[in-house]
Amino acid sequence: MPAAPSFTPASWPVRTLRKVRDTVDTMASSSPSRLFLTALFLVIAVFTALLSLPVATAKHVVTPFYDALFTATSAVTVTGLTTVNSGEHWSQFGLVVIMVAMFVGGLGVVTLASILALAVSRRLGLRGKLLTQQAMAADDDGRLGEVGTLLRIIITTTTTIQLALAVLLIPAFYVADHTLGEAFFHGSFYAISSFNNGGFVSHPDGLAGFESNPFIVVPIMIGVFVGSLGFPVLMVLLTLRHKFRKWSLHAKLTIGVSLILTVVGAVVLGGLEWNNQATMGHLSVWDKILHSFFASVNTRSGGFSLVDQNELHPATMLITDALMFAGGGSVSTAGGIKVTTIAVLFLAMAAEARGDSDIRTFGRRIPDGTMRVALSVVVLGATLVALGAALLLWISEESLDRVLFETISAFATCGLSVGLSAELPPAGKYVLVALMFAGRVGTITLAAALSARQRETRYHFPEERPIIG
Amino acid sequence: MPAAPSFTPASWPVRTLRKVRDTVDTMASSSPSRLFLTALFLVIAVFTALLSLPVATAKHVVTPFYDALFTATSAVTVTGLTTVNSGEHWSQFGLVVIMVAMFVGGLGVVTLASILALAVSRRLGLRGKLLTQQAMAADDDGRLGEVGTLLRIIITTTTTIQLALAVLLIPAFYVADHTLGEAFFHGSFYAISSFNNGGFVSHPDGLAGFESNPFIVVPIMIGVFVGSLGFPVLMVLLTLRHKFRKWSLHAKLTIGVSLILTVVGAVVLGGLEWNNQATMGHLSVWDKILHSFFASVNTRSGGFSLVDQNELHPATMLITDALMFAGGGSVSTAGGIKVTTIAVLFLAMAAEARGDSDIRTFGRRIPDGTMRVALSVVVLGATLVALGAALLLWISEESLDRVLFETISAFATCGLSVGLSAELPPAGKYVLVALMFAGRVGTITLAAALSARQRETRYHFPEERPIIG
Ligand SMILES: [K+]
Ligand SMILES: [K+]
Repeated sequence: MPAAPSFTPASWPVRTLRKVRDTVDTMASSSPSRLFLTALFLVIAVFTALLSLPVATAKHVVTPFYDALFTATSAVTVTGLTTVNSGEHWSQFGLVVIMVAMFVGGLGVVTLASILALAVSRRLGLRGKLLTQQAMAADDDGRLGEVGTLLRIIITTTTTIQLALAVLLIPAFYVADHTLGEAFFHGSFYAISSFNNGGFVSHPDGLAGFESNPFIVVPIMIGVFVGSLGFPVLMVLLTLRHKFRKWSLHAKLTIGVSLILTVVGAVVLGGLEWNNQATMGHLSVWDKILHSFFASVNTRSGGFSLVDQNELHPATMLITDALMFAGGGSVSTAGGIKVTTIAVLFLAMAAEARGDSDIRTFGRRIPDGTMRVALSVVVLGATLVALGAALLLWISEESLDRVLFETISAFATCGLSVGLSAELPPAGKYVLVALMFAGRVGTITLAAALSARQRETRYHFPEERPIIG
Repeated sequence: MPAAPSFTPASWPVRTLRKVRDTVDTMASSSPSRLFLTALFLVIAVFTALLSLPVATAKHVVTPFYDALFTATSAVTVTGLTTVNSGEHWSQFGLVVIMVAMFVGGLGVVTLASILALAVSRRLGLRGKLLTQQAMAADDDGRLGEVGTLLRIIITTTTTIQLALAVLLIPAFYVADHTLGEAFFHGSFYAISSFNNGGFVSHPDGLAGFESNPFIVVPIMIGVFVGSLGFPVLMVLLTLRHKFRKWSLHAKLTIGVSLILTVVGAVVLGGLEWNNQATMGHLSVWDKILHSFFASVNTRSGGFSLVDQNELHPATMLITDALMFAGGGSVSTAGGIKVTTIAVLFLAMAAEARGDSDIRTFGRRIPDGTMRVALSVVVLGATLVALGAALLLWISEESLDRVLFETISAFATCGLSVGLSAELPPAGKYVLVALMFAGRVGTITLAAALSARQRETRYHFPEERPIIG
């Protein structure tokens, strides 16, 4: 016999909040992708409006719509591409708006991607691989609802890390000839911008003035790297720490591929630019190594740079394109096709080379469906980049080197820039806005939609193999 | 009880020939990939030597080694890239050497790819999907051995088609102000060059002089298209004709994707160049349409062009890059990653979007192993192109537009050129030689090696899915 429902007295604000909570919970479980798209769209609209206010600019003028929309999209999608010089064009108020947009955008992306990943696990009837589910069991009085609980954990975790970064950066800026107020502002700005892989800078000349200051460069680099790993990996690291064998397969693959890409990227990018006087040729060996790692980490997709990206050798730009396209970890503020996507495809190839019918790694089997999702994400990414690049080539009459760099940076919400964003006519800026939006939501919602659909086929056609290659 | 061996009298030349036949047969069945690599290497060496002779050049000089090697590689791999103006630099003898190199190269590639495909079918215990096996049953007196029989069928089929093309082209050149001797030479040259997707031209200004002559342009276009379909598809068309339902899955996919790419390519390439006065802007509407289809067909991978590829809009170059990378049919003289590779990947994505665990098309199921082979071929191709482009950017200091175009053209043995091959220093020419060689043998031998290895796994690890996207 079911227990009789218990009535508790509740005032109307509590009831209203409960209704909002239930509506969001319902939407989150019934159509999380639509919730993601709607939320991102609304948030961008709000920040476009805020950045259009005269008070947001240093000269108290109204920013053209395309520049306000571009900056808002860039900040909310935590890309970091800019059509105006952030440190010059915007007022202190404008920069705070951007900082809040990055914080809200980063939080929103991670939360919504978590909800999507949860929805997929639930649909597939998987045991909770995302540790959030275990954490959520601890908060089971249901006050906040599922989304609320997830949000609370994410906010607690990410804010703590961002505070720690600010604690490192504020003294560093104070020592580097800033007043205490300036140090506090810039320290907070870069803490948020780095951990959220935001890529925005608050100095008119960016980080160039601190290129040899490890106390500023290193915390920013660490912030970007940690932020790019993604929430599920952070939870694994925070709860299981060095117990590597207990880590989820997702955490092992994400950290493994991230480290490989970072080291290989640093060696290749550093090697190509080693003697380039316009970039790192004039630095000491130690600074060259630091610059190489900084450049490599920021392709995954922090977007900060210590040197003028226009001065890079064309071969360096091509390698950077590839690294940006790869991107960071799933359910993070990083973009790109994601490192687990690459891991799954390479493991599938390795299985084929060994002659295995199963994709195996770390004592686990990855189902073929996951490989097909990975494949779809890569093809979607390559298609978006090719279409975007063709459109921008048509609009700008620029060379492919610069166009491809800016296109991939936008798609991968990376933010490294050769300055094309600022030079393009409005039509080109709208193309980049579309790429940032599609890059932010596209791979995540596609992967979730495909993963959630996997089902067994009841009857089979006879097998026939076309010739490949 | 086994039948007693029958002894027939045989003279020693017959016995020697039988020994050679048996050795080739043994090598073809035990390590066909090595046979492929060795044969291609030896044939290129012979033609490099021939082209190094003073008599091969118009001015009776010794061609530098890198140019002779480049031309020999380009002809034998039926690419069509050139470091010298073929119609000016080479003598009539030199052009005949190139013509023979294309004929031998085309024949060799198709034969060796057929042997590889046969070996894979045999290893997998498949019923003969390649019609050659049925055709070979008819020739079972064993005089020629397996390879000899295959070679006989391939020579008969392809020579017939090339003769038919020459019969169309010789009168067309005669009408177009050539002497009968010239018409015979050029007609034969373009018949071989087009059907083998060779891409070499025998006129100093290429086909530009005939850009509005449909009697020359159309047969060449048809030759390229038919040649790009591949031997298994030709056999299906010749034996089953319009009985579409009986076609092999391979033939259906090859022809389907080839037609789609050709039409979409023509529309996009034509649309982008419609008003470009430096390419087709000055032509009549009919000629523009003809040029669009000619350009589209030749990305699959004929390599002939009617206009200066340097004058193409950068967006057109990027679309051409993508079409060249796709390439033609398997077991053909065309290069690229091959149209069935693309078909399998898109069908895998479509299956995923429908939520099917099986990849199904035309009432057949394509095994997951085939998808992984396709994936491996794409990744190999993309890796070769990326490495090649990075190396050439480093060597040439050229823009990515031109470098990527020439790199993909070499990898896909396409032969469309922006002229970079001729401008590069020797180091760059060697890179392109390596790309042509790797592009010619790489995808075919990789796919064969992987396909032949597929086996069932006896035990399974527990399943775990990383998050994708
Ligand atoms: K970024
Ligand atoms: K060719």
